[in-house]
Amino acid sequence: MLKTREEYIESIRKMNPNVYMFGERIRDITKFGITRLALEGIGVSYDLPHDPRYREMVTKRSDLTGEEVNVYTHINSSSEDLKRRVKVARLMCQRTGVCTGRCPGWDCINAIWDTTYEMDKKLKTNYHQRFREFMKRVQQEDLMCAGALTDAKGNRALRAVRQSDPDMYVHVVEKKRDGIVVRGAKAMIEGAACAHEILVQPGTGFSVHEKDYAVAFAVPTNAKGLSIIVNRQSSDERKNDPGFDKGNTKYGSLEALVVFDDVFIPWDRVFMCGEYEYAAEMVTKFVLLHRMVLAGCLAGCGDIVTGASSLLADYHGLSRQMLDKLIDMVYYSEAMYATAIGAASEGTAYPSGAWFPDTLLANVSKLNLFWMPYEITKLADEIAGGIVSCMPSEKDLRGRVTGPYVEKYLKGTYDSTTENRMRIVRLLENMTAGAGRISALCMHGGGSPAAARLVLRQLLDLHLKQRWAKDLAGIE
Amino acid sequence: MLKTREEYIESIRKMNPNVYMFGERIRDITKFGITRLALEGIGVSYDLPHDPRYREMVTKRSDLTGEEVNVYTHINSSSEDLKRRVKVARLMCQRTGVCTGRCPGWDCINAIWDTTYEMDKKLKTNYHQRFREFMKRVQQEDLMCAGALTDAKGNRALRAVRQSDPDMYVHVVEKKRDGIVVRGAKAMIEGAACAHEILVQPGTGFSVHEKDYAVAFAVPTNAKGLSIIVNRQSSDERKNDPGFDKGNTKYGSLEALVVFDDVFIPWDRVFMCGEYEYAAEMVTKFVLLHRMVLAGCLAGCGDIVTGASSLLADYHGLSRQMLDKLIDMVYYSEAMYATAIGAASEGTAYPSGAWFPDTLLANVSKLNLFWMPYEITKLADEIAGGIVSCMPSEKDLRGRVTGPYVEKYLKGTYDSTTENRMRIVRLLENMTAGAGRISALCMHGGGSPAAARLVLRQLLDLHLKQRWAKDLAGIE
Amino acid sequence: MLKTREEYIESIRKMNPNVYMFGERIRDITKFGITRLALEGIGVSYDLPHDPRYREMVTKRSDLTGEEVNVYTHINSSSEDLKRRVKVARLMCQRTGVCTGRCPGWDCINAIWDTTYEMDKKLKTNYHQRFREFMKRVQQEDLMCAGALTDAKGNRALRAVRQSDPDMYVHVVEKKRDGIVVRGAKAMIEGAACAHEILVQPGTGFSVHEKDYAVAFAVPTNAKGLSIIVNRQSSDERKNDPGFDKGNTKYGSLEALVVFDDVFIPWDRVFMCGEYEYAAEMVTKFVLLHRMVLAGCLAGCGDIVTGASSLLADYHGLSRQMLDKLIDMVYYSEAMYATAIGAASEGTAYPSGAWFPDTLLANVSKLNLFWMPYEITKLADEIAGGIVSCMPSEKDLRGRVTGPYVEKYLKGTYDSTTENRMRIVRLLENMTAGAGRISALCMHGGGSPAAARLVLRQLLDLHLKQRWAKDLAGIE
Amino acid sequence: MLKTREEYIESIRKMNPNVYMFGERIRDITKFGITRLALEGIGVSYDLPHDPRYREMVTKRSDLTGEEVNVYTHINSSSEDLKRRVKVARLMCQRTGVCTGRCPGWDCINAIWDTTYEMDKKLKTNYHQRFREFMKRVQQEDLMCAGALTDAKGNRALRAVRQSDPDMYVHVVEKKRDGIVVRGAKAMIEGAACAHEILVQPGTGFSVHEKDYAVAFAVPTNAKGLSIIVNRQSSDERKNDPGFDKGNTKYGSLEALVVFDDVFIPWDRVFMCGEYEYAAEMVTKFVLLHRMVLAGCLAGCGDIVTGASSLLADYHGLSRQMLDKLIDMVYYSEAMYATAIGAASEGTAYPSGAWFPDTLLANVSKLNLFWMPYEITKLADEIAGGIVSCMPSEKDLRGRVTGPYVEKYLKGTYDSTTENRMRIVRLLENMTAGAGRISALCMHGGGSPAAARLVLRQLLDLHLKQRWAKDLAGIE
Repeated sequence: MLKTREEYIESIRKMNPNVYMFGERIRDITKFGITRLALEGIGVSYDLPHDPRYREMVTKRSDLTGEEVNVYTHINSSSEDLKRRVKVARLMCQRTGVCTGRCPGWDCINAIWDTTYEMDKKLKTNYHQRFREFMKRVQQEDLMCAGALTDAKGNRALRAVRQSDPDMYVHVVEKKRDGIVVRGAKAMIEGAACAHEILVQPGTGFSVHEKDYAVAFAVPTNAKGLSIIVNRQSSDERKNDPGFDKGNTKYGSLEALVVFDDVFIPWDRVFMCGEYEYAAEMVTKFVLLHRMVLAGCLAGCGDIVTGASSLLADYHGLSRQMLDKLIDMVYYSEAMYATAIGAASEGTAYPSGAWFPDTLLANVSKLNLFWMPYEITKLADEIAGGIVSCMPSEKDLRGRVTGPYVEKYLKGTYDSTTENRMRIVRLLENMTAGAGRISALCMHGGGSPAAARLVLRQLLDLHLKQRWAKDLAGIE
Repeated sequence: MLKTREEYIESIRKMNPNVYMFGERIRDITKFGITRLALEGIGVSYDLPHDPRYREMVTKRSDLTGEEVNVYTHINSSSEDLKRRVKVARLMCQRTGVCTGRCPGWDCINAIWDTTYEMDKKLKTNYHQRFREFMKRVQQEDLMCAGALTDAKGNRALRAVRQSDPDMYVHVVEKKRDGIVVRGAKAMIEGAACAHEILVQPGTGFSVHEKDYAVAFAVPTNAKGLSIIVNRQSSDERKNDPGFDKGNTKYGSLEALVVFDDVFIPWDRVFMCGEYEYAAEMVTKFVLLHRMVLAGCLAGCGDIVTGASSLLADYHGLSRQMLDKLIDMVYYSEAMYATAIGAASEGTAYPSGAWFPDTLLANVSKLNLFWMPYEITKLADEIAGGIVSCMPSEKDLRGRVTGPYVEKYLKGTYDSTTENRMRIVRLLENMTAGAGRISALCMHGGGSPAAARLVLRQLLDLHLKQRWAKDLAGIE
Repeated sequence: MLKTREEYIESIRKMNPNVYMFGERIRDITKFGITRLALEGIGVSYDLPHDPRYREMVTKRSDLTGEEVNVYTHINSSSEDLKRRVKVARLMCQRTGVCTGRCPGWDCINAIWDTTYEMDKKLKTNYHQRFREFMKRVQQEDLMCAGALTDAKGNRALRAVRQSDPDMYVHVVEKKRDGIVVRGAKAMIEGAACAHEILVQPGTGFSVHEKDYAVAFAVPTNAKGLSIIVNRQSSDERKNDPGFDKGNTKYGSLEALVVFDDVFIPWDRVFMCGEYEYAAEMVTKFVLLHRMVLAGCLAGCGDIVTGASSLLADYHGLSRQMLDKLIDMVYYSEAMYATAIGAASEGTAYPSGAWFPDTLLANVSKLNLFWMPYEITKLADEIAGGIVSCMPSEKDLRGRVTGPYVEKYLKGTYDSTTENRMRIVRLLENMTAGAGRISALCMHGGGSPAAARLVLRQLLDLHLKQRWAKDLAGIE
Repeated sequence: MLKTREEYIESIRKMNPNVYMFGERIRDITKFGITRLALEGIGVSYDLPHDPRYREMVTKRSDLTGEEVNVYTHINSSSEDLKRRVKVARLMCQRTGVCTGRCPGWDCINAIWDTTYEMDKKLKTNYHQRFREFMKRVQQEDLMCAGALTDAKGNRALRAVRQSDPDMYVHVVEKKRDGIVVRGAKAMIEGAACAHEILVQPGTGFSVHEKDYAVAFAVPTNAKGLSIIVNRQSSDERKNDPGFDKGNTKYGSLEALVVFDDVFIPWDRVFMCGEYEYAAEMVTKFVLLHRMVLAGCLAGCGDIVTGASSLLADYHGLSRQMLDKLIDMVYYSEAMYATAIGAASEGTAYPSGAWFPDTLLANVSKLNLFWMPYEITKLADEIAGGIVSCMPSEKDLRGRVTGPYVEKYLKGTYDSTTENRMRIVRLLENMTAGAGRISALCMHGGGSPAAARLVLRQLLDLHLKQRWAKDLAGIE
C-alpha cells in the first residue's frame, strides 16, 4: 500500500503529534506554515511512487511483504540499491531543494536491521524478529520514520555517566514487565514533527557501566511524554507568511529537539536494551549510509543552486561571464555525487543480507561534503551579486508608494520580470543563508568531519604503504 | 564639535528621513527595531571620540576647520592616516560586529575631494571649492554621510544609454538656474536610512553621450522626492523582537534602495555635472579606499566569530580539540588585516594632498576578502556543530512546557548556563547565516572580485617580468 | 600466451627500436639506465599475470582469441571491467611508483575499436575488421602498445592547415597502392621507447580541408623513418648512476618525441585515413578512458607518497604530530579513486560492445586530478621537512672524509639507519620534484583541465536546472 | 668599502673554504659549476650597490662605521628599513631567480645584535661589544655572512641531552683560556660554501642541563675542522654542464651540511656561551625577520615564474586563454608581498635600537608562504603544458640526427625560436621541479608552518575576543 501525498498528510494530521514551536503547542501542524512546508517536502517522497516516470526508481519489492515498497523503507539488498538510494536522494533534492528528513529513517532501518541480526545470532536475543514485525507494518502502512541519533550530550568531554545530569543521553530509567521507560532528549532530529514513527538509536562509546544508555526503540510521534520542539532556522518566520520572501515557496525542512519525559516503550518496540557492545556498531552502520547518501542530497541541492544562479546571471545579462563559475559549481556537485556512487558501487553484503557501502569511501564522501557546498555557496554569492543579502521585500513590491519604485528599479534584462528576479534572489538567499542553507546541511550531517577523519585513521594501513615505499627505495 | 551618540540619534530623529520598509513608511526610525539597531551601530562611531582610550585613534585635527574631527569625515593626509583607518574599521567591527556603513561615506569624501581638485585644475570648474564648503559643515556638525555608488543597472550587458529604461542609472533630468533635478536609484546603500547626508557618486564607463549620468552631489536624507527603502536581510524580523534570537543584541547593519524621484539638488551641493571623463576616476578612488579598509572590518568581524566560536567550544568541553581551527581563523583575519596595512603603508599622496593606498595592493586586499571570510565561516560552523543552524527559540526557553526541557537539555559544561550557550549560538548564526553574515559583506563590498581582477590585469607588467625571465634563461 | 617480464624485455631488445637520447642513438636500451628502468616498470605488468594473487585481477578471457589476455590489451566488456582497470592502475602504481605508459595503449585500443566499428557501419569501410586482426596478434603475442595522441601543434591558436609548417600535425603525405606514407611528430608519448607497437590516433578539430590529418594506424617501434627521442625528466641523469640517489631504485617512466619522417604504413595497419568527422570521436573515447583510469595511477602513487612520508615521520620521531597530515593525504588519494570508481560504475556499452565510463563523471575525475596531487605533494613536503630539497649525496655517504660525517649527522631516531633515511628522502624527492613528480603526471595526462571543463560545459543542462529552480521559487 | 662582484668572488677564492660535494673536496669553488652559479647569485648583491639605479635602495649609512654599507650587513633602524629589506629581497629574486642565502646572515646579525645587548644589560656580559667589533669588520670589509641555525636534530621527539649521540646539536666540548671548541653540525645552511663567515646561532628549548648547547659564534669558512658538504638539489648535475638545460643559466642556490669537528673559536668571536635562557629569544628574532623577508623572495621568484609562464603562453599562441591564470599568479605573489610589507610597517624598535617586524603579522606572512607558492607552481604547470616535465635535451637540439627534428617539431608560434621556447621551458622546470623549486624554498624556510602556528597560538588572546562576543550576545 503506497500512500499518496494527501493520505500521508492526512494520516499525520490525524495522529496529531506533540509538536511545539516558539514555546507553544502547534494545534494543527498541517495548517502551520513551517510544519506544512515540511509535510509538503516529505510528501514528494509519497508522490514519486505514483509517478510512472519514477516508480521503478523509487520503489522496490520487499522480501518482508512481497509488495512494492518505497525505497525509504527498504532494506538494501544490493550494490545497485545503494547507488539507487544516492540517485533518489539527488532526485528528491532536485525536486524539493530541502532535506526532508527521510534519509535518517532509512539509515536507522538498515542499521537496526543488521545489528539486531548480529545481536540475536551472538546473544540469542530476539530483537531482529521484533524489528522484522515492526518493519512489516512500516512497509505495509508506508510509514514515515524519522531517525534519531544525536543526544543532548552536555559536556562533550565527559562520557554519559560522568555528566552532572544523567539525562544528557537518552537512557532507560525503568524496566517493566511490558516495556521500558526512557528519559532524555535527541537533538536536531530531521523531520521528527512530520513522522509517524521515530526510530531511536543509542550513541556510541558506552561502557559496561552505561548499559542503560544502550537503548534502541521505535516510538509514535504522539506518544505520551514525548515532546517535539521544532528548532528555529535562519529566516524561519518568513515560512509562516504567504508570498515568496521565504525563497523556497513550496517545501521546507524541519529539525526538532525530541524530549523523552519518561516515555513508556512496549517491549515489541524495543530493539536494544543494555547490549552496550553493539551500540557503536549500530551507529557506525547509520553513519556509513548517511555519509554516502547525503552526497546525493547535496548534489541535488547543488543542481538547484546552479540553476538559480544561472537564471540570475541571465536576468542580469551576464550569462557568458558567469559560465566558468557555473562549471565550477557543476564540478563540485558531480564530484560529491561520483564519490558516493563509487562508495555504493564498492558496497558489500553484511551477514543479515543488508548491504552497506565501502567504509573508507563512504567516509571520504563525508569529507567532500564538509567543504564543497561552501565552494558552491561562494560561487553562487559571486554570481548573484550583493542583492542576495539585501533586497527590498515582497511587501515593498506590493506597497503603494514603494511598489512602483521596486518594480522599476529591480528590473533586470528586458525579458525578465522584476518579480521573477526577486523570486530567484529569495530562493538563492534561502539556500545560501536561510532556512535551506546547504552549508549547514553538509557540515554535521552524518557526524562531524572529525568523526569521518577518525575512521580514515582507523583504516589507515600505514604499514602496507610503508612496505611499498621501502621496496621502491631499495630498503631490504 | 564632536557629537555624542545621543546627539547623533536625536539629530537623525529630528530630520525624520524618508524611510520605508515592508511597503510602509517608518514613522520614527529610532523606535523601529531594525533601524534602531543600525543607529546604535553608527552611534559607536560617535561614542569612541569621547572615550579617552580611543580619542587619539579616532579623531584627527582637520585642516579645514582647525578642529579635531572624527576620522570618518577626515581627508587622509598621510600613510599613517590610511593605516589608522584600517585599524579603526577593525575596532568598530570588534565593538559592533556589523557594517555600520560609515566607510562608504569616507570613501566618497576622499574620492570627491581629490577628483574635484583635478577637475577644477584641468577644467577650471569650481567643484572643489564647493565641496570644501560642504565638508566644513560636515566636519563642524559631525555629520554621518552615507556613500552611494551602485546604480540599479538593469541589464548589465548594456551601457546606460542603451537600457530600455533610461533611469537605470542616476542622471540629471533637468538643469535649472539654481540647481539640477536627478532621477534614478542607488542600490544597497549602507547606512542610508541613518545618515544626515547621502553623498552620491556616478558609476563608471560613461561616454560623451552619457554626460547626464556623470553626476555627483550631496543630498539630505529628508529631501523631497527621495525614498529610502530598507532592504531585507536574512532573519531580519528577529531584530524587531526583544530578546536574543536576533543574535547581535545591540547593533545592526542596514542597506537600502535609495530612489531619486526627480529630486532637486541646489548647485552648491553638486560636485560633478557632465564631466563624464572624470566619473571613472572618482569610482576608482572610492573603491581603492574601500578595498583596503573593508579588510579591517572583516578582520574585526573575524575576531568576533573567533571569540564566539571559542566560547562555544568551551561550553561544549571541546576547547583543546578546536584550538587548531581557531588558529586557522586567526590566520585568515590577520592575513586580511596585514595585506590592508601593507596597502596603506605603501600609499601615496595625490595632487590634492589626499592620500590613497597602493593601487595594486589594495586590489589584492579585495581578492583576499572574497574568499577568506568563507573559510572563517566554515571553521565556525565546524567548531560550533549543527546547533547553529537549528536550535529551539528563546520563546521555547521561556515557554511553560518547553522551557524546562530546553533549559535542561541545551546545557553544556557545568559552568556555562543554557541561556549563555543559546546566546552565543544565536550570535554565530547571525554572523554566519543571518543579518550579519560576514561572507555577504565580503563578496561584493568594494565591487566584485572580477572588478579587482581587472585592475590587476591593467597593472600587470608582463613585459618586465618576461624580460627578467629571458635574462635568466639566457635569451639575448 | 602471456609473456613473462624476461620474455617481454628480451623481445624488445631484439626489436632494437630506434631510440635516441642526449642527441645519440641508444645502442641497447636494456643496458641504458633510463630505458632499463622504464622496461622494468612495464615489466611489472608482465609479472602480475603470473602471480597467483593477481592473475584473476589482471587477466580476462578475450572474445577475440578465446584465451586469457592481459587487461591492458583487452576490450572492456562491462562496467566491472572499467572498475577493474582503475584498480589495476592503482596496483601498478603501488608496485612501481611510476607511470609505465601502458594505459594510453589501452585507451587507444578501445577508442579505435569502437570508432572503427562506427565508421564501418556508417561508411562501409573495413577498418574494424583490420583492427580485429591487428588486435588478435597483439593479444596472442601479448604486445606492449604505446598510445600516441598529442601532436607537435606549433601555434596552438591556429588549426593544422594554417600552421606555417604543415607537419605540425601528423598527416598522410602519400597514398600508395600498398599503404600510406606519414609525416609529423607525436609529443610526450609515454613508454614509446619500450613498446612493440605504437598506436597512433589523430588529434581533434579537423575540417574537410584537413582530411590528411585524420589518420590512425599502428607502427612497430623499429620502423624505418621512425625516431623515438627520449625526453629529459627532472634529475634524470641519476637514473644512469648506480645507487639510490635516483630515488625510485627499481622503476622509471619514459616519454618521448616520436618523429615520423615519411614512414610507410601498410594498409592492414591503417585504421582511419581521411574520415575527418570521426577523428574527434576517437579522441573523445581515448580521453574518456584516460581521465578515469589515471585516477587509479595517482591514487597508487599517493599511497607510495603516504607510505614514504610516514616512514620519514617515524625516522624523525614525529609520527604522532604528522598523523593528521597523513589522513589528509589518504583523503585525496581515496577521493580520486572513488570518483573514478563512480565513473566506471556508471559506464555504458557503446554499439561495438566496448564499455566506456560515464562521460560527465570521467571528466569530473580529471578535474580532481589536476589539483589533488599538488595537495599531496605539499603535505609530503611539510611532513618530510627541508631535507627533501637538499641533502648530501650517496657519494658523500660513501666518501672517505664526508662519509663518517654524513653517517653521523643524518641519523634520525635510534632504530633507523642513516642510509634508510636517505633512501626514503630520495624517493620522496623523486615523487615530488624529480623524474616521478606526481604533479606532472596529473596536470596534463588525459588532456588539460581546460579540456575537461569544456566537456562539463557541453553537458551542462542549465535549462533543466533552471526549471527546477523556477518551480521552487514559484515562477509559473 | 663596498666590494664589487669580482672582488667578492676573488676574496672567496683566496679563502679557499673547506667545501665538499659528491664525496670529494672541491679544489676551486669558482671553477666548479654548482658553486660558481651560487657565487654569481650572491655576486648580484655586490653588484647592486654599484648600480646607480639601486644604490640608494641597497645601501644604508652605518652607525658603526659611519660609511655606507650593504643592507645585508646593516642593523635595521626603522620600520622603513624593514620594508626596504622586503623590497631588496624581491629585487634580488627578480634578478637571480634563486635564494642566494644572504638573508639568514642578515637575520643572524640582527638577532645576535639585539640578544647580546639584552644579555649584557641583564647579565653584565660583554658579548654585545664583541659583536659590535665583529660587525665593524663585516661592514668595513663588506663580508658575506651565512647564518646557521638548524641542527642535525636526530630524533625530533627528544631534547638535546636525551639524544643517543650528544652531538646532534652543536655544542661546546671544551672551554679554553683563549676560546672554545665546538662540535656538531648545522644542516641546510644556505650559501655557506660561498661565505666569508658563518654566524652560528643555537637552537631553542634548552634547559639548565643543556648550557653547552647555548652557543653562538662566528667562524670563517676555511677554519680548521670545519667541513662544508654541499647538498644535492633536484637536477643539480645539469649545473655543471654548459648550455641551457640547467634552466637558470646564470645563478644558483646552494645549501650545505656544515660540520664542526672540534673547531676552535677564539673568545672575541663567541657571542653566547652557556646563557641557555637567551637561546630561544635569539631564535625568535631570527625567524621573525626571516618569516617576513622570505615573502619578498617568493614574490620575486613568483614574478619570474609569471614572466616565464606568460612567455610560454605567447610562444604557444595562447596568451589570451592564459591571462586569468597569470592574474591569479600575480595575486599570490602580491599577497605574500603585501603581508610582509604590513608586518614590516607595523614593526617596532627593540631595546638595542634594532627594529623587528610585528610578531603576529610576520608569522602570518610565513603561513602565506607555505601554500601560495604551490598555487603558483600549479598555475605555471597548467599554463606551460606537459612539456615542462618532459622535453628533449639541448643535446638533442644539437644532435646530428635529432637536431633537425627537435628544431622543427618543438617550434611554437612563427615569431618564437625553438631554442628560446626550450630555454623558457627549462627555466620553468628549474623553478617548479628543479634546483630552484620555489615550493621547496617556501615550506621550511624560516621554520615549519607548525612553528609559525605555534606563535599564533601563543599570541591568541581568546579571552579578549570572547569578551567582545559576549558583549554583542548580551551576556552580562
